[in-house]
Amino acid sequence: MSDSKVQPKILPGFMELLPGDQILFNQLVQKIRRSYENFGFVPLDTPIIELSEILLAKGGGATERQVYRFNKGESDLTLRFDLTVPLARYVSQYFDDLQFPFRRYQIGKVYRGEKPQKGRFREFYQCDIDIIGNGSLGLLNDAEIPAAIYSTFKNLGLGNFLIRINNRKVLTGLAEYLGVKDKANEVLGSIDKIEKIGSEGVKKELEKLAIPQEKITTIIEFTGIKGDTKKVIQELKNLSISNEHFLTGVKELEVVSKYIKALGVPNKNWCIDLSIARGLDYYTGTVYETILTDYPEIGSVCSGGRFDNLAEFYTDRKLPGVGVSIGLTRLFYQLREANIIKPETYTNTKVLVLPLTDNLTTPFEIASKLRDGNIPTEVYLETEAGFREKFAYGRNLGINYIIIIGEEEIKNSSITVKDMVKRTQESYSLKDLSVLIDKIKNH
Amino acid sequence: MSDSKVQPKILPGFMELLPGDQILFNQLVQKIRRSYENFGFVPLDTPIIELSEILLAKGGGATERQVYRFNKGESDLTLRFDLTVPLARYVSQYFDDLQFPFRRYQIGKVYRGEKPQKGRFREFYQCDIDIIGNGSLGLLNDAEIPAAIYSTFKNLGLGNFLIRINNRKVLTGLAEYLGVKDKANEVLGSIDKIEKIGSEGVKKELEKLAIPQEKITTIIEFTGIKGDTKKVIQELKNLSISNEHFLTGVKELEVVSKYIKALGVPNKNWCIDLSIARGLDYYTGTVYETILTDYPEIGSVCSGGRFDNLAEFYTDRKLPGVGVSIGLTRLFYQLREANIIKPETYTNTKVLVLPLTDNLTTPFEIASKLRDGNIPTEVYLETEAGFREKFAYGRNLGINYIIIIGEEEIKNSSITVKDMVKRTQESYSLKDLSVLIDKIKNH
Repeated sequence: MSDSKVQPKILPGFMELLPGDQILFNQLVQKIRRSYENFGFVPLDTPIIELSEILLAKGGGATERQVYRFNKGESDLTLRFDLTVPLARYVSQYFDDLQFPFRRYQIGKVYRGEKPQKGRFREFYQCDIDIIGNGSLGLLNDAEIPAAIYSTFKNLGLGNFLIRINNRKVLTGLAEYLGVKDKANEVLGSIDKIEKIGSEGVKKELEKLAIPQEKITTIIEFTGIKGDTKKVIQELKNLSISNEHFLTGVKELEVVSKYIKALGVPNKNWCIDLSIARGLDYYTGTVYETILTDYPEIGSVCSGGRFDNLAEFYTDRKLPGVGVSIGLTRLFYQLREANIIKPETYTNTKVLVLPLTDNLTTPFEIASKLRDGNIPTEVYLETEAGFREKFAYGRNLGINYIIIIGEEEIKNSSITVKDMVKRTQESYSLKDLSVLIDKIKNH
Repeated sequence: MSDSKVQPKILPGFMELLPGDQILFNQLVQKIRRSYENFGFVPLDTPIIELSEILLAKGGGATERQVYRFNKGESDLTLRFDLTVPLARYVSQYFDDLQFPFRRYQIGKVYRGEKPQKGRFREFYQCDIDIIGNGSLGLLNDAEIPAAIYSTFKNLGLGNFLIRINNRKVLTGLAEYLGVKDKANEVLGSIDKIEKIGSEGVKKELEKLAIPQEKITTIIEFTGIKGDTKKVIQELKNLSISNEHFLTGVKELEVVSKYIKALGVPNKNWCIDLSIARGLDYYTGTVYETILTDYPEIGSVCSGGRFDNLAEFYTDRKLPGVGVSIGLTRLFYQLREANIIKPETYTNTKVLVLPLTDNLTTPFEIASKLRDGNIPTEVYLETEAGFREKFAYGRNLGINYIIIIGEEEIKNSSITVKDMVKRTQESYSLKDLSVLIDKIKNH
């Protein structure tokens, strides 16, 4: 390459795919889209650039440091870093034009200027669903979300998965009961570590927080509760914790569990997991995480929960909601790295028409008929190329059917169809093209 | 609204849609996507942020002034302003992994910080197809592009349209023949004005350029050539212009025309229009514009052409290509403004299950069965709401079927199905749900 050329490259932390992988990625997007629409969510598409005063209204923390923020003219602009803040702005802005509960999905790119590292992206797709209520939102919506997750991951076909459900009220109620409300985060943090440090480790940490011994015993009992939903609910009740939040949380878990069953989510695909807290302070009730059971190391692939107030920075209206998000770029990257998915072909094209003549009239007419039959078709148009080169193109693309049209075929009003997968070859009369179209369609 | 709130709004020049319009927009995207794939184009998705040295390698002109450019850390970044420059970078970068001719489509947002005005957008979708050759690219590809445009606009169903085709070699050859190669742009500019200022006006302008009278006569003759393709080609030949570029251009137009016919594009949907020049210096052969015949005021809705060298700034390889782009955001805006398209519904949801009981088990089970049958279904979950409110929700969403489930229905193991369009009502036994599913599907 001569010195005057700019080296073609993209920024670290940005994902870009070769055609076969892109087709695979788009198939996942399409499955998610259909699943979301099947549950009655409507699509949204908000701008990627918004005013900083809108996107950073909440302010503070990691968000502000990570965003792509810049000035254009007199405007202070930021690239969206999630799809939730734009949703809050959207619902406030178009409130009068929307029907509530407002069920929307959005699949789009978001931007976070994180330190790039393996599996971390600065530009990535989020696939969100949320149900937003006007003033209030029934608890039963919390059961719809796992049903939608179940349906989506079943359709994605990524193997076994488990939706883990908890309720933040149970955790905050527990902290209140223990009289450590001001230390709630530390207590929950310790509980969160039980798999790492064991119950003895948790005990020690709680002792450091000056929590009385008998209450520590209750916490340890609490962390031991797992298994069948009914058993979990019963054991939570058996703890006899007389705290309003705790009892409300348990009651909510019980109702949500009942309806998750009614919605047909199999027992093997969901459970109550009292260790799920979710990092964000944002959530106030039911919370969700989802793991691919055979690949727990990937971590949660679909998370979210119930929140009390979506849009407090833009409106006085109370807009509670519940929703989840799939971080698709990271998920795709992990699945590809682990070889759980891989591209089957370079293209969606089903037929390559390969003319061996100079006159392309017949090949073009055949291609048009196939395309009219909705069979993705390409014609090899480099007439100068030799047969080997032409044929190699079709083979390299992994196209299933190659239709050869030479002088002899034109003379006989016929075509030769090579099935590149079955390694067979058949001759069709041009009159019977519809037979071929049906055959390819039903393949 | 209290003073502490941030007013929810988006930036001028950005398009954001209500759900019904978004569904309509997505339908257009989906039709374009399918049409492009049907012609054997593979999808790409490149980053929206790239290094400025990449995107602005060509430099100069309006582009540089309009781009969104900013620094993040030590990186000088720019938001892509079209999908062609990223394609050039992509093809150079992954050259060894691609098959040539490389047929790709990309549908994505691009950014131009233009002065906002009605119908002009700063964030807008482009829907591009391009065929890129390695070293050379056969002329017949130039015939595939109008066939793809025809198929796409037929599928979009936006009424009559006309693909206007020309060849830059004809125009540059004409300028060379006139001995005004250095004034080629002025000459072409004058020719371009013929509909505005008439042939007398063009004559006067050309006289100012000191072009000899007999050559002006040739130009005026040239601008008068229109109508049937064969006639146009013959009249171009009759001009007896002995310039190599001109003759090559006419020959190319002749071959491309022949194969456009073979590809089944009806005569009423395309023509040779010698006034089409395309602003960009970029194009070197066939050029395309497309108008909606009933709405010519919208201007070209799909334009492009043949170019000699896609990626000269990133590679020494010669990569000729041909392609077109649909500016979908602007097109959608114009179509909506002119009421040529309008949303039919607020949602894609087909069925609203409306429980009139407190126990949602049966309603949820029915919703699951409908969803399993791929019928987008929603359950109204606000159990506190009154019947009027519940029913108004379904009506406002414009949902076709409302399934009512009250105590009586549960007792009889039946459901009441209201067809909101036909204003009829039927009762179904729960056992016959599959009959209902089939009926809704075949609707």
